[in-house]
Amino acid sequence: MKSYITEALANFFFEYETPRQVLVRNRRVGIVCRLIQLGVLVYIIGWVFIYEKGYQTEDTAIGSVFTKMKGVAYTEISGEKRVWDVSDYVYPDQGDESFVVMTNFIITMGQTQSTCPELPDGKNTCNSDEDCMKGQFKRTGNGHMTGKCVNTTKTCEIMSWCPIEDDRQIPDPPRLLAAENYTLFIKNSITFPEFNVIRSNLVEGVDQSYIKTCLFDPEKDPLCPIFRLGDVVRLSGFSFPQIARVGGAIGILIDWECNLDLSIQKCIPKYRFHGLYGSSEGDSGQASVGYNFRKAKYYVEDKVEKRTLMKVFGLRIDIIVHGLARKFDIIPTLTAIGSGVGIFGVATVVCDLVLLYLLPKRDFYKNMKFKYTTVLDEEPEMQLEKVDQRKE
Amino acid sequence: MKSYITEALANFFFEYETPRQVLVRNRRVGIVCRLIQLGVLVYIIGWVFIYEKGYQTEDTAIGSVFTKMKGVAYTEISGEKRVWDVSDYVYPDQGDESFVVMTNFIITMGQTQSTCPELPDGKNTCNSDEDCMKGQFKRTGNGHMTGKCVNTTKTCEIMSWCPIEDDRQIPDPPRLLAAENYTLFIKNSITFPEFNVIRSNLVEGVDQSYIKTCLFDPEKDPLCPIFRLGDVVRLSGFSFPQIARVGGAIGILIDWECNLDLSIQKCIPKYRFHGLYGSSEGDSGQASVGYNFRKAKYYVEDKVEKRTLMKVFGLRIDIIVHGLARKFDIIPTLTAIGSGVGIFGVATVVCDLVLLYLLPKRDFYKNMKFKYTTVLDEEPEMQLEKVDQRKE
Amino acid sequence: MKSYITEALANFFFEYETPRQVLVRNRRVGIVCRLIQLGVLVYIIGWVFIYEKGYQTEDTAIGSVFTKMKGVAYTEISGEKRVWDVSDYVYPDQGDESFVVMTNFIITMGQTQSTCPELPDGKNTCNSDEDCMKGQFKRTGNGHMTGKCVNTTKTCEIMSWCPIEDDRQIPDPPRLLAAENYTLFIKNSITFPEFNVIRSNLVEGVDQSYIKTCLFDPEKDPLCPIFRLGDVVRLSGFSFPQIARVGGAIGILIDWECNLDLSIQKCIPKYRFHGLYGSSEGDSGQASVGYNFRKAKYYVEDKVEKRTLMKVFGLRIDIIVHGLARKFDIIPTLTAIGSGVGIFGVATVVCDLVLLYLLPKRDFYKNMKFKYTTVLDEEPEMQLEKVDQRKE
Repeated sequence: MKSYITEALANFFFEYETPRQVLVRNRRVGIVCRLIQLGVLVYIIGWVFIYEKGYQTEDTAIGSVFTKMKGVAYTEISGEKRVWDVSDYVYPDQGDESFVVMTNFIITMGQTQSTCPELPDGKNTCNSDEDCMKGQFKRTGNGHMTGKCVNTTKTCEIMSWCPIEDDRQIPDPPRLLAAENYTLFIKNSITFPEFNVIRSNLVEGVDQSYIKTCLFDPEKDPLCPIFRLGDVVRLSGFSFPQIARVGGAIGILIDWECNLDLSIQKCIPKYRFHGLYGSSEGDSGQASVGYNFRKAKYYVEDKVEKRTLMKVFGLRIDIIVHGLARKFDIIPTLTAIGSGVGIFGVATVVCDLVLLYLLPKRDFYKNMKFKYTTVLDEEPEMQLEKVDQRKE
Repeated sequence: MKSYITEALANFFFEYETPRQVLVRNRRVGIVCRLIQLGVLVYIIGWVFIYEKGYQTEDTAIGSVFTKMKGVAYTEISGEKRVWDVSDYVYPDQGDESFVVMTNFIITMGQTQSTCPELPDGKNTCNSDEDCMKGQFKRTGNGHMTGKCVNTTKTCEIMSWCPIEDDRQIPDPPRLLAAENYTLFIKNSITFPEFNVIRSNLVEGVDQSYIKTCLFDPEKDPLCPIFRLGDVVRLSGFSFPQIARVGGAIGILIDWECNLDLSIQKCIPKYRFHGLYGSSEGDSGQASVGYNFRKAKYYVEDKVEKRTLMKVFGLRIDIIVHGLARKFDIIPTLTAIGSGVGIFGVATVVCDLVLLYLLPKRDFYKNMKFKYTTVLDEEPEMQLEKVDQRKE
Repeated sequence: MKSYITEALANFFFEYETPRQVLVRNRRVGIVCRLIQLGVLVYIIGWVFIYEKGYQTEDTAIGSVFTKMKGVAYTEISGEKRVWDVSDYVYPDQGDESFVVMTNFIITMGQTQSTCPELPDGKNTCNSDEDCMKGQFKRTGNGHMTGKCVNTTKTCEIMSWCPIEDDRQIPDPPRLLAAENYTLFIKNSITFPEFNVIRSNLVEGVDQSYIKTCLFDPEKDPLCPIFRLGDVVRLSGFSFPQIARVGGAIGILIDWECNLDLSIQKCIPKYRFHGLYGSSEGDSGQASVGYNFRKAKYYVEDKVEKRTLMKVFGLRIDIIVHGLARKFDIIPTLTAIGSGVGIFGVATVVCDLVLLYLLPKRDFYKNMKFKYTTVLDEEPEMQLEKVDQRKE
């Protein structure tokens, strides 16, 4: 028994199977077939390996962003001069990846909790007290109706933060048009967790002395992390005076595409700019504008809580990080090779179809390629059709 | 020499190899084998290509979100009437993708930097001054101990923002239960960088006039970007009065699954809602509630810095964008075909096993399929077993 | 006609093709070939399936984070004692995934909109009024020049928030060094949308009673979601006193790597810490420090708007969630098998090369393997070279 197993093993290890082939000497078939095989080879080497880099694995980045604005604006509103610095016009303060730069505003000073008439903007008109149901809200209103219709404005009296903000007219030109010259500094750090690579947008060559003087320019200074706000707006396809008046949202895409088989120094960011939140009418949001929110500053005066309400129009800037790194890996390499060999098999199948069904001598080739057995449900009597020819 | 190379090249190009096959005429093996091959074919075409769309590449979206709340609440606390508008109850103001809607609060007015006794909540009791080490903090305490034990409260005196907030009782019912009727407007913009597609959740059909009147409903208005807060809570599986009292976190998932081989108009978002931050006891966080933070409003009164401390309970809403686009690409198509051909090879191997090891006539088939060579380490003497039969 | 189709179908279904093989009995070739085949098999089973889990699909997580700081600091600046609690030192308040813990600050009290001389920091010196152009800004300045050169400071007079902040000296030691003992509680919820799995970092075993007492430790308590700030800084490779003085940015990476074929309870997070925003000079940002921003608190005193400006130095902490789940799926399994079979084909090709080109008996094997046809563009006259030998 043991010797039998030994022999079987020996047979297995010392034997080797290789398919028997017919070598067809036919110019037309040969050329067609070689061309198909060449095509497959070019596809596998040229496209999968060189162009699409099929021998590499991918990893997407996780990133983190810090921003800092610089610049000062000056306004003179009804005789009152005022200077606006970063703390005044950036929301929030701490340098997030998403923030708003105020470019225009409607200010309502000294609001208190009291009663006053609604804004006569046409949505809240009343003719008599019956139109103002006491204790109710209107969806278009700003507060709790007291049940009185005020004669002078023809609107309901409400309990709310009074006086009501009057936002019927957006200041034009925008009050902080100087925002065009503010500068934005972006620090971006990305990690490719699979490859254990950490990278910052302050790449080689972008050092302290360069940062002090440079300004981003898509052609001349594509790596400078300092952006003039006017440039950002222009590169996104907006007009600054228009977007400054009613606000708008802009995405700054930091695009990292890194081939880690090359030097890490070639892993540098690309900055791209586009408008966000397009309406369905616009051309993919490129031309859609309008962004505002309300911000209240609370204070206490003469024991009464008051607030200054600002309707802020501004540029909302979202820094969006997109990172993709690639590196050689044995698995995708072998998978690509393996499936390439599979496609080689397809090439053979195609050539066989030509050989066996299209050529005039197809019967001859069929006999060369195939050996037939009888239908063995019947008596198997070793009756085989002519297959091979001997020549000794 | 040159003619030799030319001949070799000619031979290579004008020749064509194709494997020689045995055509076995056996009903059982034939059917088994054809069924296996059919299965593989159905799998490749049906599943890989049609169901899983193996001929497409994928790209994940990078998105950006803007939110805006609307609604007014009215409270009457110890006789003081007050109206709360968006600036009062949303944190932060500027419409981020993650924000908090206050639904309940504990307010501590007029805190100043001074000394006062700790809250008698059981964690900071003292019997004598020795229990209160001067200049030390307690982990459970709120400030810097002065070394005195206050008799009336039986707690240490501390230096802190005084008076200390008393949060032992959470107001019930929640003070801003009206939050149920607030509405939330979401603008979402996504980019598929690989396919260069930008898309907004204000898709075709969701225009200005529709937005003015619509309200999200999973059945009737699944594309309306305006959500009633009560609906969001209900769809997440929470009860509004409970979550409004102690707070909670809800994720609104905007799910984009786009087949870019079809019309871009079919690339529309799906909104889904679920609770976040489940405890280990709960059923995957569905029923876990509790979210609060403290917010101070600072002011100066009579030259003294004071603050109003709010313990804010609220709905924290995280808008989470998940986008996946697919588009035809030649690489995954050919990879799928190639690996499909490979699996076809597996089918042949399985059939061969049946043919060569299970059938009664297996020896006959072995002779048909294999041609044996002698062990060539020994004297090769062309001793070959009977393989083929000639018929001329 | 119909019977012809029936017959063809019957032929197709009852027939079965299998390649004819040569079984080469040669020890060296056999062993080489079996070893190559074994290598491919080990690679496919061992690496692709067991090590790289090629039978699974992947999904990346979408996560949401809530944070809460705890701790109190005490300062005594020019005789004024003050206690700082969470509302005072965390920006923003609401527990975002990215926030700043103030560790040092420069405070400028009672700024008003007025005129005052620029800071004499060397960048804004003037000798006469001509150096200060009325109505202009300097990029290095803080406001709108009035056209006067102030004699005492030798700097231009500007209209701005006055007095100007003097940030020439950063307080050392940092004022809130007690921040080292603050604790940070992180709640993290992740969703794998493809597998419909929701998971929280409060995993099994991390219950209320454990959270009350535990403190994160990479060895002993790797799952405790409460972190001492000093530990976080230390584990990121920074020195606390240094980073506390000038600020810095730290990423806390919550890494979920889940094999969903196993119990869901094994899907637990790993916490990792690293410095962010490295400069080009540093070693990948590990040692880069410096983070600050300005925060203004506005108030009204005697009808005049004033503000307290804080230059905040602090730890900016970004919680970064990275989740990757894997689960068995039939598609990648079959793709891996299919491409494995393809690589098997490569093994055969390699063995054939050895057999047909390297062995001394190569001509013998060539005759065994190939059957030649004549060049059929010429007269096909069945002239075939010696291929098979018969033995009956």
